[in-house]
Amino acid sequence: MESEPTRIMIGVNQSTIKGYPHTSISSKGAFDWTLKKIIRSNISGFKLLFLHVQVPDEDGFDDMDSIYASPEDFKRMNRRDKIRGLHLLEYFVHQCHEIGIACEAWIKKGDPKEVICHEVKRVQPDILVVGSRGLGPFQRVFVGTVSEFCAKHAECPVITIKRSAAESPQDPVDD
Amino acid sequence: MESEPTRIMIGVNQSTIKGYPHTSISSKGAFDWTLKKIIRSNISGFKLLFLHVQVPDEDGFDDMDSIYASPEDFKRMNRRDKIRGLHLLEYFVHQCHEIGIACEAWIKKGDPKEVICHEVKRVQPDILVVGSRGLGPFQRVFVGTVSEFCAKHAECPVITIKRSAAESPQDPVDD
Repeated sequence: MESEPTRIMIGVNQSTIKGYPHTSISSKGAFDWTLKKIIRSNISGFKLLFLHVQVPDEDGFDDMDSIYASPEDFKRMNRRDKIRGLHLLEYFVHQCHEIGIACEAWIKKGDPKEVICHEVKRVQPDILVVGSRGLGPFQRVFVGTVSEFCAKHAECPVITIKRSAAESPQDPVDD
Repeated sequence: MESEPTRIMIGVNQSTIKGYPHTSISSKGAFDWTLKKIIRSNISGFKLLFLHVQVPDEDGFDDMDSIYASPEDFKRMNRRDKIRGLHLLEYFVHQCHEIGIACEAWIKKGDPKEVICHEVKRVQPDILVVGSRGLGPFQRVFVGTVSEFCAKHAECPVITIKRSAAESPQDPVDD
């Protein structure tokens, strides 16, 4: 008789490349790696927990020219963010459904690294999997890395999956 | 049809507590965790690679009062180290054999953190699992941590398994 399934939390986010649909390269890489190397054919032995953390100002930069004239404008922006987040999670939940693997997915707002560690504490997964762009030390100074913070502070074992060189976009800060 | 098994390398070492037989608490913890949370019932989907790195001077401290009068004395010491290492690996290989999981085990000499990263490069496992004593920042200054170095430098995804508080000996530097 098998024990409780191993609960794997995966932090997922959107691509930074405009026009690229939804999933970041490193999130998708982390998900695909987990399926291929950990879960393999043992579908019933695992449960995937997808956490998407939205940075409140994430899209502010693109909206520099927008005019916010009423509370309605902010509501509309929030609604749009939420829909984007749902589309992202829909991709992963759909994939799991196709394969037949149990999953849960949810959205939180805040600083990704802090929210992920907080959610690990709350949900207590067996493993946390995070994708990483695999940036060099110089690039890291400017963009910070969620994966490094989580590997250090999350209260469960953490696997960091680096993006392969072949998958990396021209600007390695993009994802 | 299943693809090639997922190859998991586990760094293992001896206990620092005298009289305690062979395996360190954190090595055993890393091994048990891998069986329970990753491999589960999927025995044929995985292969375990046990690497034990012996520090050349590891036992020198205990041997302060020994007298080395001839080359034979050094040979004897080397032989004793080797036998201890083999006993350690025997434990893990025996466990795998009981469960029916494929494995390989070998010994290298050198600085554990560097040798582990070098062997990852050479053997190219899918994952490296290392146990950690979970020391605080003050203790780390003096003992260094193999797990932190490997998480940063090994050329494959790394899982660090911290020892639980319940398993930790009175002096947390012991293992």
